Amino acid sequence: MRGVIIHAPHDLRIEAISPVAPAAQEVRVKIESGGICGSDLHYYHDGGFGMVRIKQPMALGHEIAGVVEEVGAGVSHLVPGMRVAVNPSRPCNHCSFCLDGQQRYCLNMQFMGSAMRFPHAQGGFRQSVTVDAGQAVPIAPTLTMAEAAMAEPLAVCLHAAARAGSLMGKRVLVTGSGPIGVITLAVARYAGAGEVVVTDIAPFPLGLAKKLGATRAINVAEERDGLAAYTADKGHFDVMFECSGNQAALVGAFDAVRPGGIIVQVGIGGEMTLPISVIVAKEIELRGTFRFDREFALAVDVMGKGLIDLKPLVTATLPFEQATEAFTLASDRSRAMKVQLAF
Amino acid sequence: MRGVIIHAPHDLRIEAISPVAPAAQEVRVKIESGGICGSDLHYYHDGGFGMVRIKQPMALGHEIAGVVEEVGAGVSHLVPGMRVAVNPSRPCNHCSFCLDGQQRYCLNMQFMGSAMRFPHAQGGFRQSVTVDAGQAVPIAPTLTMAEAAMAEPLAVCLHAAARAGSLMGKRVLVTGSGPIGVITLAVARYAGAGEVVVTDIAPFPLGLAKKLGATRAINVAEERDGLAAYTADKGHFDVMFECSGNQAALVGAFDAVRPGGIIVQVGIGGEMTLPISVIVAKEIELRGTFRFDREFALAVDVMGKGLIDLKPLVTATLPFEQATEAFTLASDRSRAMKVQLAF
Amino acid sequence: MRGVIIHAPHDLRIEAISPVAPAAQEVRVKIESGGICGSDLHYYHDGGFGMVRIKQPMALGHEIAGVVEEVGAGVSHLVPGMRVAVNPSRPCNHCSFCLDGQQRYCLNMQFMGSAMRFPHAQGGFRQSVTVDAGQAVPIAPTLTMAEAAMAEPLAVCLHAAARAGSLMGKRVLVTGSGPIGVITLAVARYAGAGEVVVTDIAPFPLGLAKKLGATRAINVAEERDGLAAYTADKGHFDVMFECSGNQAALVGAFDAVRPGGIIVQVGIGGEMTLPISVIVAKEIELRGTFRFDREFALAVDVMGKGLIDLKPLVTATLPFEQATEAFTLASDRSRAMKVQLAF
Amino acid sequence: MRGVIIHAPHDLRIEAISPVAPAAQEVRVKIESGGICGSDLHYYHDGGFGMVRIKQPMALGHEIAGVVEEVGAGVSHLVPGMRVAVNPSRPCNHCSFCLDGQQRYCLNMQFMGSAMRFPHAQGGFRQSVTVDAGQAVPIAPTLTMAEAAMAEPLAVCLHAAARAGSLMGKRVLVTGSGPIGVITLAVARYAGAGEVVVTDIAPFPLGLAKKLGATRAINVAEERDGLAAYTADKGHFDVMFECSGNQAALVGAFDAVRPGGIIVQVGIGGEMTLPISVIVAKEIELRGTFRFDREFALAVDVMGKGLIDLKPLVTATLPFEQATEAFTLASDRSRAMKVQLAF
Repeated sequence: MRGVIIHAPHDLRIEAISPVAPAAQEVRVKIESGGICGSDLHYYHDGGFGMVRIKQPMALGHEIAGVVEEVGAGVSHLVPGMRVAVNPSRPCNHCSFCLDGQQRYCLNMQFMGSAMRFPHAQGGFRQSVTVDAGQAVPIAPTLTMAEAAMAEPLAVCLHAAARAGSLMGKRVLVTGSGPIGVITLAVARYAGAGEVVVTDIAPFPLGLAKKLGATRAINVAEERDGLAAYTADKGHFDVMFECSGNQAALVGAFDAVRPGGIIVQVGIGGEMTLPISVIVAKEIELRGTFRFDREFALAVDVMGKGLIDLKPLVTATLPFEQATEAFTLASDRSRAMKVQLAF
Repeated sequence: MRGVIIHAPHDLRIEAISPVAPAAQEVRVKIESGGICGSDLHYYHDGGFGMVRIKQPMALGHEIAGVVEEVGAGVSHLVPGMRVAVNPSRPCNHCSFCLDGQQRYCLNMQFMGSAMRFPHAQGGFRQSVTVDAGQAVPIAPTLTMAEAAMAEPLAVCLHAAARAGSLMGKRVLVTGSGPIGVITLAVARYAGAGEVVVTDIAPFPLGLAKKLGATRAINVAEERDGLAAYTADKGHFDVMFECSGNQAALVGAFDAVRPGGIIVQVGIGGEMTLPISVIVAKEIELRGTFRFDREFALAVDVMGKGLIDLKPLVTATLPFEQATEAFTLASDRSRAMKVQLAF
Repeated sequence: MRGVIIHAPHDLRIEAISPVAPAAQEVRVKIESGGICGSDLHYYHDGGFGMVRIKQPMALGHEIAGVVEEVGAGVSHLVPGMRVAVNPSRPCNHCSFCLDGQQRYCLNMQFMGSAMRFPHAQGGFRQSVTVDAGQAVPIAPTLTMAEAAMAEPLAVCLHAAARAGSLMGKRVLVTGSGPIGVITLAVARYAGAGEVVVTDIAPFPLGLAKKLGATRAINVAEERDGLAAYTADKGHFDVMFECSGNQAALVGAFDAVRPGGIIVQVGIGGEMTLPISVIVAKEIELRGTFRFDREFALAVDVMGKGLIDLKPLVTATLPFEQATEAFTLASDRSRAMKVQLAF
Repeated sequence: MRGVIIHAPHDLRIEAISPVAPAAQEVRVKIESGGICGSDLHYYHDGGFGMVRIKQPMALGHEIAGVVEEVGAGVSHLVPGMRVAVNPSRPCNHCSFCLDGQQRYCLNMQFMGSAMRFPHAQGGFRQSVTVDAGQAVPIAPTLTMAEAAMAEPLAVCLHAAARAGSLMGKRVLVTGSGPIGVITLAVARYAGAGEVVVTDIAPFPLGLAKKLGATRAINVAEERDGLAAYTADKGHFDVMFECSGNQAALVGAFDAVRPGGIIVQVGIGGEMTLPISVIVAKEIELRGTFRFDREFALAVDVMGKGLIDLKPLVTATLPFEQATEAFTLASDRSRAMKVQLAF
């Protein structure tokens, strides 16, 4: 069995790893699809982000799906052969946050392919992974493995949407139309948004956003005051999802958000300089959103029911042995949205 | 009749003004007390703040109380001799925001002593002002004029508290213990906060905060890591009110706020550089708060019932003819909290 | 010009009425379509409901659409020839509720075709009606008049949905699949409900519910314990919309609602006997919902954008001269859903 | 060691029981005070309530406090001699509700002195009880054992208040001024209610309500339309706590609750007949409230800080050997509020 291991920036190796037999209440899953996420790219290009740095070799990846191969003692609802999306989140279920229903804040979280803690939590870009039975969520027969591997980013966006409250009939702005931005657009549509305007600085992702139902897709590199039309009477948008992690995107949209409007910060930027006087005078609410809890099961459910279709977002699939090529492609916003690895 | 008129920074003049006879649904109020607010000080020292600049002579002041002297046609619930707190806020009650119950966002707001619009809305530091009958709120016989003139800043803080949702049993942090910070402390106490920690960089206001019920008053100038005790397990405070308008105060408290915590930004700062990655990872909610609506009547009510006592905050009262001395004193945080003018 | 006037139960007359010239800020609309609502049927069969009784001849109808024929002074955004849905709600915009953004509670409400106040507010089943310009909402060119006349019941259901908070991913139960129940189903789908189960006691409306996307349509007359499958682990549904006004429907579903679940009472029943101990032990929230405010414009908007399609619900259209036949048909749940009059 | 055991209605026996040695993570507490609750009285007079019936001998009591006598393995934060309030709630911390932060809905709850499950969970009216270490909450040195035994009903009322959202400045009505009603009044005051009106049909508890800060205490037996003064303009109260479990109290107050008002049902009544049309037309929210979760620790905390003082409510204390006399006294609303047993 092999996996995609990062040793240092731009040093991705395909290495042999030993499979782990499932303990009680665990299962071993043969991975078939794995999507490359923005944080994987940060590890690849920069060795991490903010305070989070690779300090030991680590398998990347946390958007994965596969087939159950082996079940541990006490697992009755899963059997070998079942197709599952794998939730990369493994909270302790004992700390104060877990017992408060906020597992995403768990004090002892093991999140696949994350260097936040040391030793790092090994990622899912491996031919087989062993996880808690609860992390393996059976998928509908209609779903492909590629779609199942989209459950994780979809869960992120469902949680981001939940952070904004009801979107029914709301005017929504999404800044940044990478995979998270475009999935957020799809979620906003699903949740009944009245309109969804998307911005970016690249034509390719904006085109995809248009295909997924954006009311309007604005290239703010070409049309610098593209949001000016939305600033009358103190602003137009009820809810904004900032998905670029870029200060210019966040600040540039303040005038287009209505008083009392909500900005959900999805993109993980570093430091940003904000006009606090506008936040005060317009009573804007800037809300962070972090990962997900119950939304992973919801993601599998809504895709299985055909309520959200993310297939158009997978723009390329490469064998995992070509991980370096795949990471390079995934970094090219002029032609790639979501790039997946096949195992 | 005379008023306190600002012509330019540090150019405050006592000038004659003509009283205005009340039109229908209006009343004329003989002003007796007027409190100096931080924004008055900004006009006095800097000629304004942010984009808001004095462009014509303007009477300052919006924390005022007095006695009804004359009532216009159609006013039945007010009669001459009634003691009233004057709400400086005069919304149009016709625009979309007003008809949505959000008068504080009114597109045609006239707010006393504000240079936001041009011509400026003349302020309340005048021996008599003429206002909508609804702006004059009768006060309890137990209230002094000095207390009644505190209704406006109390309304600001009640609104800020409302922006945070229920405070019952919550752990609250207030950064900045000027008048707004200390009144926010009093409001948090009134609303059932379980503990209220206050910070500042000056001993005098911290002492007053302690007297008004702060669980702890930390001088962060002397004790730089005074909040370090509150950072275990991802942070301690459920709600933080940032009342200093100072970036160091806001950013310095991020680690002490618990995941999912709410920061209400009350202080009107300019630009601030914030760690967005912390806002994201801890799902912090940063909420602006702006003035007040129904909270003005509530402020008069709770003071009248003796539920909140702000008398200890008025540290000096000067005749309005000594306005310049009063403004100088109000700027000295080593010995002044709220300074009022007597008319 | 003629209208459909009720004089007493089962006494519906087609009578001549004088058109009213529009005053300033008003428009006169030539009505083309008018839908028969449950409350119209109550007036027709019983002379009213609860304390609301017909005390003078009254034009019925409040689900109407037509073409602007004449505009009063000061109206600039509407011109003759414009196709509009007519909002039957005319609040005073001056009382405390209106200035609090809750026009539906207006102390001086004029709601078309309602006998709640005396003199009654004349209804919309007239060849022309004169209304405030704001009540006439222009419709998209793609909308038929029949659809435009569905804006009012859709607004009712959008408001009911808003009362439940976000429905994204929620498990929803709708009891009663008359027009309001089926439109609520459509709204729940639009707002991203994860599943929507509908109940009724008649096959015809349940068939329509199935066509409009019900996950399951249960005939509780035939299958008395049809909800038993949803009672494990203290209950299944997050949100229930009670649209039948029937005690058995409400009480029969309590065991299927999860702890902390929300029941929105849409159907206007009389008195009902409820198991308070269940409401307490499961912390159920029973919320009334009444008419709508901003949701009327939203209804016109979402239909115009093709996000909700209610055309399949209009099962018959008769000339208004055959109002009695139309009312009889509308009362027959074995073959009619929404019956409309053509003017 | 002995306890107060109910065998059948009016058959309360003082019987010997064996103390239970604490297992790992458990402690044994020597009980000193125990308050008699309404549900204890239901068991005593009627053998239970609703579907809940005594099917085997059961120690009553769940409002208890005492001193740690023995600690099991692994318990470090408690040592013998510590004074503690005992939380009667022992959730499994593994079911879906527990992992959602809603332990009060736990599928495997053991709640002291409750016959809801079989075998029954034995109650706290015993000279020593053995509980999870987390159930024993250390109290401030200033608190008496009698006060500590009030933590449980205070927790119930803090949870009820939390169900209503922020009470700051709100107009509150409490119907029923037994122990739960009067503690709710105290909590509403603590949480900043603007006014709190209390009703009952007996003078003694109304007198106590007045002492604890009721704005007005209305005897609705003498003054049948005592709430009529609050019905103008569709109703006065923002929030109502129904603490009597009596249909007349609930229904009689509907007209006094404002549109959009919240009624928290605290009293566990059986079936009640409600005017659904009023719930609909005024968009009333009727919310059940059940026990508490984190509010037990909060109750101990706020009493320890002196923020809520419930000492005046304990109107009598009898030795536990006189349990029958104590239960008889506790049932007499003309002279008893909270009756406690001393162990």
